[in-house]
Amino acid sequence: MTMLDSLGIEAMIVTGGTNRRYFSGWSADDHAPDRPSGVMLIAPKETLLYASATNLPWAEAETLPGVTCVELTEAWPVVVAEAIRARGFAAVGFEDAVTTVAQFRRLSESLGPDVRLVPVADGIDRLRSVKTERELGLLRQALELTDIAFDRAAAHLREGMTERQLADFIDQQFRDLGSDGQAFDTIVASGPNAARPHHTPGSRTIQAGEPVIIDMGARVVGYCGDLTRTVWVGQPSSQLGTMYQLVAEAQRAAFAAIRSGVEAQSVDRAARDVFAAANVEHHFVHGLGHAVGLRIHESPFLGKQSDDVLQAGNVITIEPGVYFPDWGGVRIEDVVVVEDDGYTNLTRAPKLLDETGSPS
Amino acid sequence: MTMLDSLGIEAMIVTGGTNRRYFSGWSADDHAPDRPSGVMLIAPKETLLYASATNLPWAEAETLPGVTCVELTEAWPVVVAEAIRARGFAAVGFEDAVTTVAQFRRLSESLGPDVRLVPVADGIDRLRSVKTERELGLLRQALELTDIAFDRAAAHLREGMTERQLADFIDQQFRDLGSDGQAFDTIVASGPNAARPHHTPGSRTIQAGEPVIIDMGARVVGYCGDLTRTVWVGQPSSQLGTMYQLVAEAQRAAFAAIRSGVEAQSVDRAARDVFAAANVEHHFVHGLGHAVGLRIHESPFLGKQSDDVLQAGNVITIEPGVYFPDWGGVRIEDVVVVEDDGYTNLTRAPKLLDETGSPS
Repeated sequence: MTMLDSLGIEAMIVTGGTNRRYFSGWSADDHAPDRPSGVMLIAPKETLLYASATNLPWAEAETLPGVTCVELTEAWPVVVAEAIRARGFAAVGFEDAVTTVAQFRRLSESLGPDVRLVPVADGIDRLRSVKTERELGLLRQALELTDIAFDRAAAHLREGMTERQLADFIDQQFRDLGSDGQAFDTIVASGPNAARPHHTPGSRTIQAGEPVIIDMGARVVGYCGDLTRTVWVGQPSSQLGTMYQLVAEAQRAAFAAIRSGVEAQSVDRAARDVFAAANVEHHFVHGLGHAVGLRIHESPFLGKQSDDVLQAGNVITIEPGVYFPDWGGVRIEDVVVVEDDGYTNLTRAPKLLDETGSPS
Repeated sequence: MTMLDSLGIEAMIVTGGTNRRYFSGWSADDHAPDRPSGVMLIAPKETLLYASATNLPWAEAETLPGVTCVELTEAWPVVVAEAIRARGFAAVGFEDAVTTVAQFRRLSESLGPDVRLVPVADGIDRLRSVKTERELGLLRQALELTDIAFDRAAAHLREGMTERQLADFIDQQFRDLGSDGQAFDTIVASGPNAARPHHTPGSRTIQAGEPVIIDMGARVVGYCGDLTRTVWVGQPSSQLGTMYQLVAEAQRAAFAAIRSGVEAQSVDRAARDVFAAANVEHHFVHGLGHAVGLRIHESPFLGKQSDDVLQAGNVITIEPGVYFPDWGGVRIEDVVVVEDDGYTNLTRAPKLLDETGSPS
C-alpha cells in the first residue's frame, strides 16, 4: 500500500472522524475529541474499522468495499494495541493532530516498548488535499445545491425579514434539495452585524440599502459546499457599492495568481495588495481562504502565515472581505479547483454588480 | 483560586471548546480538535481568553465578568508559553483529554524545561459534573422547551409521514421556541429502523402500530436537553406493548437506585437486571445514561464499565432500551438531577402507557 510505504510505517491508526470517513466511508461523527465513534487500523493486507456493538450495524451498512468491521469490546487503545502486537508491527503511524495526550499515553502503555508510534497526520492531510474524481463529483454536487439554495434565498429576501428567518429559509432549502443539511451554521449578517465575520443570525431586521452577508454551504455525502455573497434590498448605499467593487477586484487579483506550484501565501498577498492600495488592508481581518472537502476547513490554507503550496486537485475557497465596525462589511467567496496552469471556478451563484458597478 | 489549589497547579491552559465556554461564557465552537477558536490561561489573579483578531469582537461581546480578551498574534502554544514564562509559573495544568499530541509537543517546546505540564482534564470534568444553580436553571429551560417540542411532535405525527419530515418538524419547533436549536441531530427511527439506537432519519414512511423512537433535545445558552420517547400511530402491536412495559419497568428500577454516593454502575445494573429477568439483557446494547450539560455526553457515565460515583448536583439521563433487528426497539429517556437521598425528574413529557398497559 503506497500510503504506508511513503510514510515509512507498517500500519496506521486512524482516530479522527474525518480521516475515518475518508478511509472507511462510515458517516459517524465523534461525540467529542476524546470519544471517537470508531477507530481504524489500516495495514497492507487489511483495513479494520472498530466500533461499539451499538454502532456496528450502522458501520457495516455504510463502509466501503474492503473494510472489515470489528466489535470494540474494550477501550480502543487496548484493543488496537493487541491487534498491532498480534501482527508483529514495529512502526505504526497515528494522527498526532487529532489523537489526544490521554489517548496517546494509554496507547503507548498498551503497546509496550517494542512498537514505535510515528506521527503522520500531515501526511494524511496532504493525501486528502488532492481530491479524487469521486470527491470532485461530490463537491460539485454540494456546490450546485448551495448555488440553487442561494438563488432561492436571494429571491426570498425582503426588507423587514430577520436574519434568523432568512437563515432558517436557507437551511430548509438544503433539506428540501436532498442534501445532508448544512455544512456549517449558516451566517446571515446584516448592517453593522456584517462587520463580524462569524456573526450568528439573530432577530435584527434587514433594512434597505445595507449589506447582508450570506455565508452558506450544503453538504453531500459528507462533502462541504461553501459560498458567500453580499446582497442588499433595493439600491446599495454608496459605501456598499464602493466596497463591493473593491472586494470583487481583490478576488479577481487572487484568481489570477492561482496555479499548481505557487505558494498559498502569494495568492493571499495578491488580494491583500488590492486592499493595501485602497488603504483598507487592516479591514481584511482573516485569511483569503482554505480547502474544503469532508471538513469545511482543511489544508491548504491561504493566509499570511501559510507555508502551504497549491497543488493541482486542491479545492479551495477564495473569500476576501472587508469589515468596518458600526457600518458592516462585504465578503465574496467562490470555490475553485486548482489546475496545472490556473483554476476552474466551481461556483455559479451570480455576483450582484458587474465590473462597472451596475447590477449584472 | 480553589480549583487551581486543589489540582496542585499555579495556572491552567484550557483548549477545549466546552471548558472554554464554561470558564469564559464565549459560545464559539471549535472548527476541529486541532483548530481551537480560542485558548484560555486561568491564573489566580487573571483569566485570559486568547482569540484571533477575527473572533475578538465576538468573544468580547459574550465573555463573563472578569475575563480579559487578548488578541492571538501567533500560534497559541507560542503565545501562551510566553505568557506563562513571563509570569514565572513552574506547574501549569492542561487538558490532556482534549489537547492533541501535536499541540502538546509544540507547547512543551515553547515552554522549555523549566515549566511542568500537569494533566488535569478529569479534574475539570469533575468540577463541571456538579451543576451550579445557573446551570440547573439553563438545563431546566432546555428540557422544558424539549418537552413542549415533543408535545407538538406527538400531536403532529401521522401515518405515512416520513421520519425526515417529523425530524424537520421537531427542529423547526426548537427554533420557533427560541432555543439555540438542536443539542444533537434529532433521531426519528420507525419500525425496523428503531433497532438502531443512532439511526439517521430517512425517507421511510411511518406505519400504524409500529414503534417510533424519537430522541431529541433543545439547546439553551449552550446547555443540552435530552429526551427519548417511543410512540406509535393507532394501537401498538402486542410486542410493542410488552416491550414498552418492560423498558418502563427497567427505568423505574434505575430511578429507585439513584442517590448521591452510589456507583453509577449499580444504577445501570438495576435496569439491566430487569431485562435479564425477561431474558432480553443482550438486547440492551448501550449504557443506561450519561450526564448532560454544555456537552450532550459528559461524566458521570452510567454503564457496565463505569467507575463513576453519583454526586448530588449531577444531571443525568436514564435511558434504558431494547432493540431487535428486523422488528425495531423501544427506548425511554428522562433527565434527572441527583440528590442526597434520591433524585428529581426534570422531564415532564408524558409516557404513552401507564403501568397497566393502558394509554395514560
